[in-house]
Amino acid sequence: MTALGYVALSPETLADRLGGLAVLVEKVGPPQDWQVREVGDGNLNLVFIVTGSAGQAIVKQALPYVRLVGESWPLPLKRSFFEYNALIRQEARDPGSVPEVWHFDEAQAIIVMEFLSPHVILRHALVEGRRVAGLGERLGQFCARTLFRGSDLSMTAAARKADLALFAGNVELCDITENLVFSDPYFEAEMNRHTPGLDGIVARLRADLSLKVAAQHLKMAFTSRAETMLHGDLHTGSVMVTDTEAKVIDPEFATYGPIGFDVGMLIANFLMAHFSQPGHEKVPGDRAAQQDWLLSVVTTIWETFAAEFAYLWRSERRGILYEASLYEDQGHGLAAEQALNDLLGQIWRDTLGFCGVEMHRRILGLAHNADFERIADEGRRAMCEARALAMGRQLMLGAGALPGIATVTEMARRMDKEDHL
Amino acid sequence: MTALGYVALSPETLADRLGGLAVLVEKVGPPQDWQVREVGDGNLNLVFIVTGSAGQAIVKQALPYVRLVGESWPLPLKRSFFEYNALIRQEARDPGSVPEVWHFDEAQAIIVMEFLSPHVILRHALVEGRRVAGLGERLGQFCARTLFRGSDLSMTAAARKADLALFAGNVELCDITENLVFSDPYFEAEMNRHTPGLDGIVARLRADLSLKVAAQHLKMAFTSRAETMLHGDLHTGSVMVTDTEAKVIDPEFATYGPIGFDVGMLIANFLMAHFSQPGHEKVPGDRAAQQDWLLSVVTTIWETFAAEFAYLWRSERRGILYEASLYEDQGHGLAAEQALNDLLGQIWRDTLGFCGVEMHRRILGLAHNADFERIADEGRRAMCEARALAMGRQLMLGAGALPGIATVTEMARRMDKEDHL
Repeated sequence: MTALGYVALSPETLADRLGGLAVLVEKVGPPQDWQVREVGDGNLNLVFIVTGSAGQAIVKQALPYVRLVGESWPLPLKRSFFEYNALIRQEARDPGSVPEVWHFDEAQAIIVMEFLSPHVILRHALVEGRRVAGLGERLGQFCARTLFRGSDLSMTAAARKADLALFAGNVELCDITENLVFSDPYFEAEMNRHTPGLDGIVARLRADLSLKVAAQHLKMAFTSRAETMLHGDLHTGSVMVTDTEAKVIDPEFATYGPIGFDVGMLIANFLMAHFSQPGHEKVPGDRAAQQDWLLSVVTTIWETFAAEFAYLWRSERRGILYEASLYEDQGHGLAAEQALNDLLGQIWRDTLGFCGVEMHRRILGLAHNADFERIADEGRRAMCEARALAMGRQLMLGAGALPGIATVTEMARRMDKEDHL
Repeated sequence: MTALGYVALSPETLADRLGGLAVLVEKVGPPQDWQVREVGDGNLNLVFIVTGSAGQAIVKQALPYVRLVGESWPLPLKRSFFEYNALIRQEARDPGSVPEVWHFDEAQAIIVMEFLSPHVILRHALVEGRRVAGLGERLGQFCARTLFRGSDLSMTAAARKADLALFAGNVELCDITENLVFSDPYFEAEMNRHTPGLDGIVARLRADLSLKVAAQHLKMAFTSRAETMLHGDLHTGSVMVTDTEAKVIDPEFATYGPIGFDVGMLIANFLMAHFSQPGHEKVPGDRAAQQDWLLSVVTTIWETFAAEFAYLWRSERRGILYEASLYEDQGHGLAAEQALNDLLGQIWRDTLGFCGVEMHRRILGLAHNADFERIADEGRRAMCEARALAMGRQLMLGAGALPGIATVTEMARRMDKEDHL
């Protein structure tokens, strides 16, 4: 599984091995002063913070297996290659949206990048009830810019096809998404788990033929609709924030897929944060304002995404699709507007579907999220999770009939008062 | 543009250069007896028939430019690589459907293959009013088998992603399709031409905003929906026939795209053959039976495609989509049937759209077809072509509302009696 010469870093060996790297010395200072801490709390990789006399850096290294599980679940080092390639494209397409990349070593699967400080993982901030100014705007812009500019709406055909081919190599991480997101939640797959009190609603969902069909249609959309370069894992654990800033990290699941995938997954995680809030109450209702804010972020993400996408459509649609030579240059600017609205409508329906499936897999599948997991009381957790499950189903099956984001946030408010166990 | 060492073959040099090829000597006999004729009548390549004491062979070699235009329109030799890769996959997925490939030389862009005899190009046979027994069945099977078995419904995810990446390299031939099929017909592009009498209807089509939007939605589907390996140029000039047999040739436009693309392009060419028949009449009505037969082929292509696709869905759906582990193994076979019908419905709508766009580009764009071109009387030709143009528009805009293939053939019959000039 390991590339020739690959050796995992450790805090003890890092300065010896990377001390000759000019960019790292420039950013951090001379290696004799480095302090190295391993801080990886994700499931997959080694992450080191290197602190020196001049500054700090992150050194991220892929392991040839899933860190959380061990060597019994091998995972290729090349995911680091895809992460690097996604990061530099995201930086080019939405400058400042991701950490600066300073160095990449493909054989060692090492990315050296900017240390974000005092940023914390957004999901943890949300569980604690914190807010981030401008969050929905920033994430909506990120989605619109990276998704528009990675598509045939913007790139040359040859460049997009080259990137499509490049990211088609990310087989093993796509396989995780294909199985864990779209299939496992809908039957009793081996690695699934769910909160015990959910048995009833889980049985109903897994007996729901239309839901199981919708999930596989979404899976086919994910595997076949190569519209743009996705982040591929855009949840609140892939965003780092201060009170006023947000940066997106960890695009190792990057692949070509439908524009609505990233947007849907992102919104799903805010909706789950919303449904989890009553589980974190200290006194009844003390999270109500946080819930309102979370739903306002959902609204802003979608509205900013749609507005920015439309702005880019009108100002820099220079790819091979919906060409100005065919529309504006012929005095048919209205055709461009008609096409934009059709496309935004399709992205909206896709977004709702992917949103629903993400809400299901985080509660029924292998990979759960801290929003619900940190609710110690199982009965309370089940109550919160059941609402998210019910709403996920409605988003997947009702995607074609939901007229706008206000319907979605209103649904979330209503569901939050219902018992779906 | 040319690969290192590439030299175009000629009838004079072929025996010297390929006489050492064991498989060719085995199939054709010793090279001293070879007779070599260059017979390429397509737009792109050199095609030689090699006749020896033991048999015959086809030697097809790509030129580094478009043959019809000359060196001013370069076209990479690697299209031969894609043609070879498509041919061996089509043979594996539908044995006997394509010529046997005996040898491939990537650097020289040479494919050595079975000489089909006494086959002729289907389009020429149709212009002459000939019929082919079992034609619709054979072509419908070819579509279903190659399109199903090249998708995530059948292949492993890793194999499909590898093929997606491989065919993503076919940039220049996709570029031809992207421009000449989906964009050029809908404005006054430089290389367009049309029969003079069509000026009125052409102006109306090019002022039709909804039509121009539909064409670009189809273009986006073509470039982004990587559902399966397409033939990519499946018209009646890419089929060779006897009175009872049909083989598919020339898949150099192969790429990953939507299942409905091949089916739609194929049906379009039979509909155009239908509309062209009155232009080939010697006495009024002497092509009526041929028209009936052509529409019966349209019906049979679709019905066979749908039936064979359903058969393969039920009997060998072993890919990562709509898994039996999720459906049949859970006692939810009905979910598999529901998903199949949804998918066939989507393929049907796509088929109609691509069918319409193909009918337009063959009359409005650069590449016309013999069905109409061989109608010497321009007024008569315009009358026939206008009906095809009108029907193409209806298929593109009405795709969502046409309930079945009988509606399409009935529409063709009615259009054939109307004046759309």
